Amino acid sequence: MQHAKPLPGYLVQRYQGWKATTYAENHSWYRRLAEEGQRPRAMVISCCDSRVHVTSIFGADQGEFFIHRNIAALVPPCEQDGAQHGTSAAVEYAVTVLRVSHLVVMGHSACGGVKGCLDMCSGHAPQLEGNDSFVGRWMDILRPGYARIEDIADPDEQARALEHQAVIVSLENLMTFPFVEEAVKSGQLSLHGLWNDIGAGSLSQFDPKSGKFEAI
Amino acid sequence: MQHAKPLPGYLVQRYQGWKATTYAENHSWYRRLAEEGQRPRAMVISCCDSRVHVTSIFGADQGEFFIHRNIAALVPPCEQDGAQHGTSAAVEYAVTVLRVSHLVVMGHSACGGVKGCLDMCSGHAPQLEGNDSFVGRWMDILRPGYARIEDIADPDEQARALEHQAVIVSLENLMTFPFVEEAVKSGQLSLHGLWNDIGAGSLSQFDPKSGKFEAI
Amino acid sequence: MQHAKPLPGYLVQRYQGWKATTYAENHSWYRRLAEEGQRPRAMVISCCDSRVHVTSIFGADQGEFFIHRNIAALVPPCEQDGAQHGTSAAVEYAVTVLRVSHLVVMGHSACGGVKGCLDMCSGHAPQLEGNDSFVGRWMDILRPGYARIEDIADPDEQARALEHQAVIVSLENLMTFPFVEEAVKSGQLSLHGLWNDIGAGSLSQFDPKSGKFEAI
Amino acid sequence: MQHAKPLPGYLVQRYQGWKATTYAENHSWYRRLAEEGQRPRAMVISCCDSRVHVTSIFGADQGEFFIHRNIAALVPPCEQDGAQHGTSAAVEYAVTVLRVSHLVVMGHSACGGVKGCLDMCSGHAPQLEGNDSFVGRWMDILRPGYARIEDIADPDEQARALEHQAVIVSLENLMTFPFVEEAVKSGQLSLHGLWNDIGAGSLSQFDPKSGKFEAI
Repeated sequence: MQHAKPLPGYLVQRYQGWKATTYAENHSWYRRLAEEGQRPRAMVISCCDSRVHVTSIFGADQGEFFIHRNIAALVPPCEQDGAQHGTSAAVEYAVTVLRVSHLVVMGHSACGGVKGCLDMCSGHAPQLEGNDSFVGRWMDILRPGYARIEDIADPDEQARALEHQAVIVSLENLMTFPFVEEAVKSGQLSLHGLWNDIGAGSLSQFDPKSGKFEAI
Repeated sequence: MQHAKPLPGYLVQRYQGWKATTYAENHSWYRRLAEEGQRPRAMVISCCDSRVHVTSIFGADQGEFFIHRNIAALVPPCEQDGAQHGTSAAVEYAVTVLRVSHLVVMGHSACGGVKGCLDMCSGHAPQLEGNDSFVGRWMDILRPGYARIEDIADPDEQARALEHQAVIVSLENLMTFPFVEEAVKSGQLSLHGLWNDIGAGSLSQFDPKSGKFEAI
Repeated sequence: MQHAKPLPGYLVQRYQGWKATTYAENHSWYRRLAEEGQRPRAMVISCCDSRVHVTSIFGADQGEFFIHRNIAALVPPCEQDGAQHGTSAAVEYAVTVLRVSHLVVMGHSACGGVKGCLDMCSGHAPQLEGNDSFVGRWMDILRPGYARIEDIADPDEQARALEHQAVIVSLENLMTFPFVEEAVKSGQLSLHGLWNDIGAGSLSQFDPKSGKFEAI
Repeated sequence: MQHAKPLPGYLVQRYQGWKATTYAENHSWYRRLAEEGQRPRAMVISCCDSRVHVTSIFGADQGEFFIHRNIAALVPPCEQDGAQHGTSAAVEYAVTVLRVSHLVVMGHSACGGVKGCLDMCSGHAPQLEGNDSFVGRWMDILRPGYARIEDIADPDEQARALEHQAVIVSLENLMTFPFVEEAVKSGQLSLHGLWNDIGAGSLSQFDPKSGKFEAI
């Protein structure tokens, strides 16, 4: 692997700033976490998007949240086919090994992945349709959600509806994993669906009674 | 999806605290990010582990880092088989759509995923070997790394060597993606391999000349 | 005192969140409390244990509960010997100055202090027996309770019985304070003994008729 | 112990409300805390005063803070005389058994205990001087602090100065405990002195360089 480069200077500087402040203030806590292992209370599945920091929104301290981030915060359905399923592995580890109490799926506004799915499903993004598009194949997970919102005429409304569907489909898919279903039914685990409006700084949560997202 | 529950009170309180402070202080920046989209300079692939917050170590501001987190911060090799590859989709989006300048793979000490791989490859974790183990199948990605370190006798030294191999294997796999290889060769993108010692708060980086990780 | 350090960042952030939300919403009430002084209706004596928050269980609003927390929620007998008795001072202040109506002693399950007392009294914790063990000397208060339960053979049952005795002994000791006895006999004050099962989230209370703790 | 009474109805109702909401939402977390024990990161020593809720100010979740509350948040000096020292026992348990990373002493404005000490030391509270005054003997701990502020003429300024001294004297006394001194010197533990203005909702912290309390 001859291609690796030294870390750029701006990241070295930030790391050294962190080391001299946050780490220095809390080093005994970091050492305990290293020795005694993690015991997070919640898992959060969030988007890779650089504008959405769940660690900031929930004031995440070291050791509190097991965080998986992928494109559009999607969970695929359970498929035990021997292939590599990174999201399924993360959910399995959180629920069966760490035994988290809460699993939060958090989508957000202006999501590029969801936008790509909308374009693809409506026939406007042929470049996402082949096997050479990893983003296209990943967004296939959301096709059942598209089917429910394709009749919405207003484009902004439709995009938001599909962002909401991404959370709902992921919650539905979570329940197809036997270990999730069992943990939910036994009361060990509760599932939560959130949607973050980046510009407004607001959170709304999925209410299964109304089938809608309600402001917190 | 009737199983979703309201967000627990302690997370609501923290969100409201964030809204009234961090968000309130920066709302115009959040609004610009929402309107103009993200333009991150770097992608970071990090572990889901609750003790490793790349946002903290690099003082990540909103909009700066496109972050993918999975078990053990692994990247699989490029496989254009039409299946769902979440990590590959995230890399593709970062490199071809967002055109990031840096791609950082960051492993860490005391990694539960790497430990599971070590147990599995050395025959001590039969429960990870079947198709019903998502964690086991995911950690298959690291088997080529195990082959290089299986002769190390000291268990602690071996575990650390495999944590380092996880970064190296991921960097190698990154170069199997045509769009990554092209971006690296054209100079648009540089790759970086890091390993974080949680207890010591230190970072070391992979040096392709020595083939070792050197303290920053 | 050159050893004091700045408050760690995670506590600063939480304080700022509280200031911007809970305090901001209630600032006129906080100002009145500051100007007019406190007038709590009840005193609660509870354990220092991080898992037992009487403020949460009783939805304690600012100004409602005068709360003393020590190891195992113990009250020593009245000893007017000129030495420093922090618990006795707190009881005296609550009963004679604040003239509270209720005094609640609340023990709990899995209490580390009570467990230490059990080990010490049964000869399994010599390190708690010397004058250099503050915890050991503090738990001496519970020795009369141990004498009543030492014949219980089942270890879990015995531990629970001693946790209950901690509440009973404390209630007995409270009555050795002349000002408590007088306030109880005049009807100004009533005493209450509670035991909280942390895992079950249940409360039971001491019933002087049966001599047992009954679920609420 | 025939004097215990049933819990008053308003507390029963609040407990049942908590059980049906906070506990119900988090019961799997409570069970884990019950089974696996506490691992608090910080100890807080605060006043019994009903207007000061450190759990509220720091958004304390179950399991996070080991909290000792006594009159005026005082720590006496280390005295291994075989007598019962509740505060010393709590500090010993937090530092040597729980190995907390932070120990925060938090005083506050309009503190009745500090006011009593001021009256007593200036000769205006003879009722606090005898051995029958537990509050008086407890406040003797603060006499060294009074000596440093007795020349301040303005009564409000003097009261505030003595509230600050209560924190400083307690920090000084903490360092007389061998296990505290050792943990501070090894870097396991850091000490923090805070003072809360109830009406303003503000926190200030002791800065050893200036010897003063500075706003956070």
